[in-house]
Amino acid sequence: MPDAVTALIPSRTGPDDLAARVGDVLTGFLAEQALTLEAVSPDAVALADAVRDFVAGGKRLRPAFCYWAWRGAGGTATPAAAAADAADTAGTGSHGEDAGIVAAAASLELFQAAALMHDDVMDDSDTRRGRPAVHRQFASLHRDHGWCGDQDRFGLAGAVLAGDLCLSWSDALFVRAFGPHGLPPAQLAAGRAVFDTMRTELMGGQYFEMVEQARAGTGGAGDAVSRARRVIRYKSAKYSVEHPLLLGAALAGAPADLVSCYSTMGLLVGEAFQLRDDLLGVFGDPARTGKPAGDDLREGKRTVLVAFALEKADATERATVESLLGDPRLDENGVETLRGILVRTGAADRVESLIADDVDRAREALAAAHLPDEARAALSHLVTAATARAA
Amino acid sequence: MPDAVTALIPSRTGPDDLAARVGDVLTGFLAEQALTLEAVSPDAVALADAVRDFVAGGKRLRPAFCYWAWRGAGGTATPAAAAADAADTAGTGSHGEDAGIVAAAASLELFQAAALMHDDVMDDSDTRRGRPAVHRQFASLHRDHGWCGDQDRFGLAGAVLAGDLCLSWSDALFVRAFGPHGLPPAQLAAGRAVFDTMRTELMGGQYFEMVEQARAGTGGAGDAVSRARRVIRYKSAKYSVEHPLLLGAALAGAPADLVSCYSTMGLLVGEAFQLRDDLLGVFGDPARTGKPAGDDLREGKRTVLVAFALEKADATERATVESLLGDPRLDENGVETLRGILVRTGAADRVESLIADDVDRAREALAAAHLPDEARAALSHLVTAATARAA
Repeated sequence: MPDAVTALIPSRTGPDDLAARVGDVLTGFLAEQALTLEAVSPDAVALADAVRDFVAGGKRLRPAFCYWAWRGAGGTATPAAAAADAADTAGTGSHGEDAGIVAAAASLELFQAAALMHDDVMDDSDTRRGRPAVHRQFASLHRDHGWCGDQDRFGLAGAVLAGDLCLSWSDALFVRAFGPHGLPPAQLAAGRAVFDTMRTELMGGQYFEMVEQARAGTGGAGDAVSRARRVIRYKSAKYSVEHPLLLGAALAGAPADLVSCYSTMGLLVGEAFQLRDDLLGVFGDPARTGKPAGDDLREGKRTVLVAFALEKADATERATVESLLGDPRLDENGVETLRGILVRTGAADRVESLIADDVDRAREALAAAHLPDEARAALSHLVTAATARAA
Repeated sequence: MPDAVTALIPSRTGPDDLAARVGDVLTGFLAEQALTLEAVSPDAVALADAVRDFVAGGKRLRPAFCYWAWRGAGGTATPAAAAADAADTAGTGSHGEDAGIVAAAASLELFQAAALMHDDVMDDSDTRRGRPAVHRQFASLHRDHGWCGDQDRFGLAGAVLAGDLCLSWSDALFVRAFGPHGLPPAQLAAGRAVFDTMRTELMGGQYFEMVEQARAGTGGAGDAVSRARRVIRYKSAKYSVEHPLLLGAALAGAPADLVSCYSTMGLLVGEAFQLRDDLLGVFGDPARTGKPAGDDLREGKRTVLVAFALEKADATERATVESLLGDPRLDENGVETLRGILVRTGAADRVESLIADDVDRAREALAAAHLPDEARAALSHLVTAATARAA
């Protein structure tokens, strides 16, 4: 995802700065969880530390979509003075609806953390957000202590548990957003419905992607592009953009036409977001993406980019793609060879066109919605932030 | 865990049969989740199938502790006729408080399923509940389809996702227990507090156990027994018995003295339950335990049984234990050698005594509590079921 996101997420000064407020909620909540773990064993605080460090690197994109969808649906910001008071009290939904929505939005960062930690275990990835993946960190801890047993197995177990905690904590934080000093409890059921669907669809989408990779395109060449787009929708577009928007809408009791507009816009922006991520995974600068270039190629991911390339590839190019894609030992030369094919077949350009088309249509949906000016401007910025080419 | 549990869990006829009602709630709930997954991709239904088959093998011990603690704290059973009506409506908390508590109790089975699926991934175990572990099942699915890539990696990923779904669904089902046709929403916060603590403490306890294993007893010989008992408390006793009891108590708004009694009783029964499990893991019949004999020894678990043995072992025995324990290739001869040491050092007898002592003290706590007769009798049966020697 482009680094530009951080700069472009609408930021306001002081206690109203959304990204900072999300960070504060997470910091306070995780400090409290660390105490529970410390009572189990001082060793177990390593889990809370790993989660804290991991979420510190988040871009707060999902919370921003959630928050501004809520504002767009009529949720009211707390005046800065009240928010400053609220900042004194641990930050988890204790002063009014605005504090509640920030806590609910922050819970999405923990959900994403769970998904990424477990994803890295499943893919055996080395790197995430420019640092060693969590399972590699726990393996290093094992090695540094000179402990017995297999360090990689210890690392895997540590990351499975850290991800399980993120998943549990995400929902614990979400629930805290409601109550006499937070969001109206009457909205909890509507919010839960989105939250629960988000979780099930993401895990189903990740499994669907695994099966697609395992079938390696043998599911029928003709519809490879549509299947790749379906994978994107469920493994990324929904939980990255659509569900955060729908969550904000549900928590504000948005009318059906606005929900429908958010859904349309969310799926389009979410697809464009993932297509951008796919391009960056192959062509991006690792210093900016935080991941080694070509990892998606080594993992054999059946992206839209690859599907486009295979549609237009000649027999030689196709054979090259099929032999190199999914080779875990693929080196820089191999990555460069695949890049050449992705460019020569026009696949990279077609993905750029698809992104542009998605963004255009998302902006049309946004323009058609009845929204307060501030929310419309913020959502428009977010569309750019989520999909723009890294400068 | 002894098979005797199933027979001993208090069972009443017809729609009041608790284990059957828990099973019905799970079946209905999982069928609904399968539809959400099917909409993602027909492939993804394999995740719901794996969860359904896994929870079908559960003993419903935790739901029984939760339900009878609730009854003991004044929760009122629905008359059989009303319960029969309720059974027509999908079974998730739609007719009164009794249906609500059954749904909340059933959510504990999904939580346990998540813990066990991920535990088997972390330990790379082959078998669970007499069947291949979930990651082995997904590996077989990969092999049977002749798919590309590494079948073990596919299996691992499938089990991580299935466990993540169980964790998410556990909490989704828990929340459904509340509402106009379920438990009073006013009890939700009290129930959530127990639920959230349970999750964090279990994951902290599992990590603590990993570190203890990795340190292989080098944390100081003198307190090896107390550290092993601490591991038991957090990785098993609390979530198997104490937290289910406290959840039932919280959902009935139990007074502080009853909560305290349940906590005392729960920690004692929970410890005895895990000590019994440790004995069965070494000396039990695999046909009854559903797990190969000696797996705990191969994994190098630092159980109380092992700590007792090392306290009394002579130098030769100690060297034998230290060389064999944690050897993943330990064969039946090695297991038999270790069994001999566990018996000769009196460790097995000491564990039996500790179980008997725990159970006696738990019965004292139960006797001191103010409980309706039916709940007292049911809880007393459950103490036996959870800790008795397999016949």
